[in-house]
Amino acid sequence: MKGIHLITNGKSTKKELAQLRTMHHYFDYIHVREKSKTAAELMQILDFLAGIGIPLSKVIINDRVDLAVMKGCTGVQLAYNSLPVTLVKKQFPDLKIGKSVHSIEEAWKAEKDGADFILYGHIYHSKSKQGVKPRGIQALQRVAKSISIPTIAVGGIHPEQVEEVLGAGAKGLAMISAFWESPAPLQAAKAYYERFNHWEEEHFERTL
Amino acid sequence: MKGIHLITNGKSTKKELAQLRTMHHYFDYIHVREKSKTAAELMQILDFLAGIGIPLSKVIINDRVDLAVMKGCTGVQLAYNSLPVTLVKKQFPDLKIGKSVHSIEEAWKAEKDGADFILYGHIYHSKSKQGVKPRGIQALQRVAKSISIPTIAVGGIHPEQVEEVLGAGAKGLAMISAFWESPAPLQAAKAYYERFNHWEEEHFERTL
Repeated sequence: MKGIHLITNGKSTKKELAQLRTMHHYFDYIHVREKSKTAAELMQILDFLAGIGIPLSKVIINDRVDLAVMKGCTGVQLAYNSLPVTLVKKQFPDLKIGKSVHSIEEAWKAEKDGADFILYGHIYHSKSKQGVKPRGIQALQRVAKSISIPTIAVGGIHPEQVEEVLGAGAKGLAMISAFWESPAPLQAAKAYYERFNHWEEEHFERTL
Repeated sequence: MKGIHLITNGKSTKKELAQLRTMHHYFDYIHVREKSKTAAELMQILDFLAGIGIPLSKVIINDRVDLAVMKGCTGVQLAYNSLPVTLVKKQFPDLKIGKSVHSIEEAWKAEKDGADFILYGHIYHSKSKQGVKPRGIQALQRVAKSISIPTIAVGGIHPEQVEEVLGAGAKGLAMISAFWESPAPLQAAKAYYERFNHWEEEHFERTL
């Protein structure tokens, strides 16, 4: 589950999502995180993504295990208010499970419960987390080194910080506003893509 | 799926639900319809109901197919903003599917799509549907007679109207405020139970 994860911003329009038709190759995973949308609306989004050529095998849907299973998404992202990892893993062992965590203890638990990766953040100051103190690179390092499943770092990561984040042990990073609020999304996507791949090549980590 | 369906009121507390410990025998099905609650909160409710002795085999959960499947509920209630009946039926053929409909055309479609029953209403003036014209007993009759799956009538049904509702072809009825807002819930539950069974006995309909 390593690589660059793009997370939708919670208010995605079709027009915004349509950009992914030509840009999705820069992302390893696309998270549909639209908490206020109904199941029917989420299904429309998944159908829309599939319709513009995005394989649902690279899509991770937030919270809704049913949609993930029924539409053939690669996985589901679970938060503290979602169904428990253990139950989902037991019932749907083929589904990849990401767990959103905010501490080292939660990271341990996620791994123990059977999560396939964790999403940890926010690392740096982030527009979407105004007024909440970022966790910082050292906390990221402690978390990433304490578990064997991949840590995906999220929150306020600028392209020039990609190396630092990966150097701290994260196996990937997630983009939200860095993409959706960028005046030049394509350039933004490319910047992260290139830095990620550059780091990978330098470190000879070619295994998934 | 015939019988008396109790539907939670969307703001159920544990204290309210705890009443069902001694009263659930008066209901054939209990619908957990708590649209504003998270998956984790809904799971707590299901665990709570199981803990007070209510078999989840008589519980129908609103919208969340994943919870229904994972917790072993008998079924799921789907509305216009839920996942489509066809998809759910295909993926989870053992799950009972109720579809909430508001017209004869929607009733036909629900049956064609594979729903196991429909919830149709509101039939009479109802506290929870202030200012919206009730559909009335004749519309209920047209709907119930146009499909072969059971029609469960909902909305403003008083005990003295149970006969009329069943006479119109409904195979059951749902209670919301008639139970939750009753000053005497036990008596309310008994009143519907007795009238339903009286009608059943008179009409010799003993098959499920």
